[in-house]
Amino acid sequence: MAEINRQIHLVSRPTGEASTDNFRLIEKPLGTPGEGQVLVRHHFLSLDPYMRGRMNDAKSYAQPQPLDKVMQGGTVGVVVASKHPDYKAGDNVVGFGGWQEYSIVDAGIPGSLRKVDTSKVPLSAYLGPVGMPGVTAWYGLMKICQPKPGQTIVVSAASGAVGSVVGQLAKTRGCRAVGIAGGADKCAYVTRDLGFDACVDYKAYMGKSGDPKSLYQALKEATPDGVDGCFENVGGPVLDATLARMNAFGRIALCGMISGYDGQPIPLQQPQLMLVSRLTIEGFIVSEHMEVWPEALKELGMLVATGKLKYRESVAQGIASAPEAFLGLLKGKNFGKQLVKLV
Amino acid sequence: MAEINRQIHLVSRPTGEASTDNFRLIEKPLGTPGEGQVLVRHHFLSLDPYMRGRMNDAKSYAQPQPLDKVMQGGTVGVVVASKHPDYKAGDNVVGFGGWQEYSIVDAGIPGSLRKVDTSKVPLSAYLGPVGMPGVTAWYGLMKICQPKPGQTIVVSAASGAVGSVVGQLAKTRGCRAVGIAGGADKCAYVTRDLGFDACVDYKAYMGKSGDPKSLYQALKEATPDGVDGCFENVGGPVLDATLARMNAFGRIALCGMISGYDGQPIPLQQPQLMLVSRLTIEGFIVSEHMEVWPEALKELGMLVATGKLKYRESVAQGIASAPEAFLGLLKGKNFGKQLVKLV
Repeated sequence: MAEINRQIHLVSRPTGEASTDNFRLIEKPLGTPGEGQVLVRHHFLSLDPYMRGRMNDAKSYAQPQPLDKVMQGGTVGVVVASKHPDYKAGDNVVGFGGWQEYSIVDAGIPGSLRKVDTSKVPLSAYLGPVGMPGVTAWYGLMKICQPKPGQTIVVSAASGAVGSVVGQLAKTRGCRAVGIAGGADKCAYVTRDLGFDACVDYKAYMGKSGDPKSLYQALKEATPDGVDGCFENVGGPVLDATLARMNAFGRIALCGMISGYDGQPIPLQQPQLMLVSRLTIEGFIVSEHMEVWPEALKELGMLVATGKLKYRESVAQGIASAPEAFLGLLKGKNFGKQLVKLV
Repeated sequence: MAEINRQIHLVSRPTGEASTDNFRLIEKPLGTPGEGQVLVRHHFLSLDPYMRGRMNDAKSYAQPQPLDKVMQGGTVGVVVASKHPDYKAGDNVVGFGGWQEYSIVDAGIPGSLRKVDTSKVPLSAYLGPVGMPGVTAWYGLMKICQPKPGQTIVVSAASGAVGSVVGQLAKTRGCRAVGIAGGADKCAYVTRDLGFDACVDYKAYMGKSGDPKSLYQALKEATPDGVDGCFENVGGPVLDATLARMNAFGRIALCGMISGYDGQPIPLQQPQLMLVSRLTIEGFIVSEHMEVWPEALKELGMLVATGKLKYRESVAQGIASAPEAFLGLLKGKNFGKQLVKLV
């Protein structure tokens, strides 16, 4: 057992764009689990866009990430030592251990730790398609978009951990799945590998010389029958374009607006379309809908185990790489689920 | 029986602001009802903000108002002659007779004509609190905002035909009702006469030298516990302010956005609040929810008949005054339900 537990702390809050200066690598002596506790060695750390919001000290749905504390985040790992009757060394577990190599978990707290079966589903997938991002996709699509066969579903950040699941699930419901992603390589992956019907490369239209109207035009060609359900991860001009393609009684699941995470204004240009098209828009956070997790994880696990749900990972190596990998995620440099491998 | 039926036609579509030049007074010989038809003399014509949208030849929820035809609109009147077994001369009826003094109605078409009882509810009220505006208020509040006792409901255009009903209904559900209206006189009416708990005069903050932040500040003082339900008729800075006051899981009924009816941009400045506060926003048109009309009209009729639901009318006299009265309505010059009296 290592003597040292390396951690990443948040040491300052970003003004505007986040930078590596906001983080610091800290070495702490590794403790031992007390009664009811479990020592977990993290194999993978999950990096997710929502973490950017928590770095601010602003009104948000979650408490801000405290300064000079370990960055919070999802983890998968293996039990090293246990003083809780339900866990033993060698168990594969999912938890919320944060940006560090080890964590000591009060395993009796509901939701703190969950044993997972890695015989058919790889451990890392429990941070992606069979974890929080997968359930996020499932909830937003099934409960908010409520897809019907023959409908068109549009999802932004389509090659990402959430978006990739949204489109593939939409296909299982008999929908036309249309992605929006940044770059030709991501779009090719979305259509060829993930089986979406179409994908619009927003970077081809939204560059510095770009014109939002051309993005709309490209989306129009990809959605000849309009859009019935939108799963939004990006916001800004991407959402403006989709809004203008929505059919009457369309439904929008608002999951993220990563285009505004650094505080830049991202006004919605034509909110009157919500009225004209009688849309329903719902913002949500998957952790507030724990009731759907069992049903969602069952389907997602089955789909991954049988190879029907494809996914891709960007893996950074070592805890020290976490800040840079996270900043890259915010800029769309990742390709699929962004992980940090710690073993 | 008059020989002449005076009508207002739409003769051109506005570019930007509508003007009286878009309308023309036409005199037509008055016909006689054929088999199954009813001749109705209109006593009141309803003027409503939605009519502005139909004057454009743009994508909207309704077919555009055709050029060189009678302007469409709700009417109440009295049957003059009938060749339909369900109607006889002297019947009080609500219909959709348009901007003209008489109409000949195919009374067999469902929804074309409805007999009403004027013993306890004045005829004109069937164009207001016990008509389309009242049901609009009822649907948006009850079905979308879903008010619970103790919650705060904000409604814009609070002294208008719809807004005035929203707040009074919210009070019957045990809510704090807060209006937003244009002018001190309207605000005084909303709180003193209609019984709202508070009213914010947006004109005091949104003038040419105004600052949207001061509107937010005034709304904050009027909504110390935040806002749980918003019934939106205006859009623009008014909606921006309310959005920033919404509590988690707040609900917004999007009924109208009159601030943008002339085509001016009315961007929503902080759409990310929909996500941060996990809001549900729903645009609706009451004519698409006919299933609630009986229940809504029953309650609204009872409330008006017993004097528990108060309302106010701005009455223009004579069909020729309709265009100017309508343009005034779009600028908020009316005070309460805008009608044109034709007898």
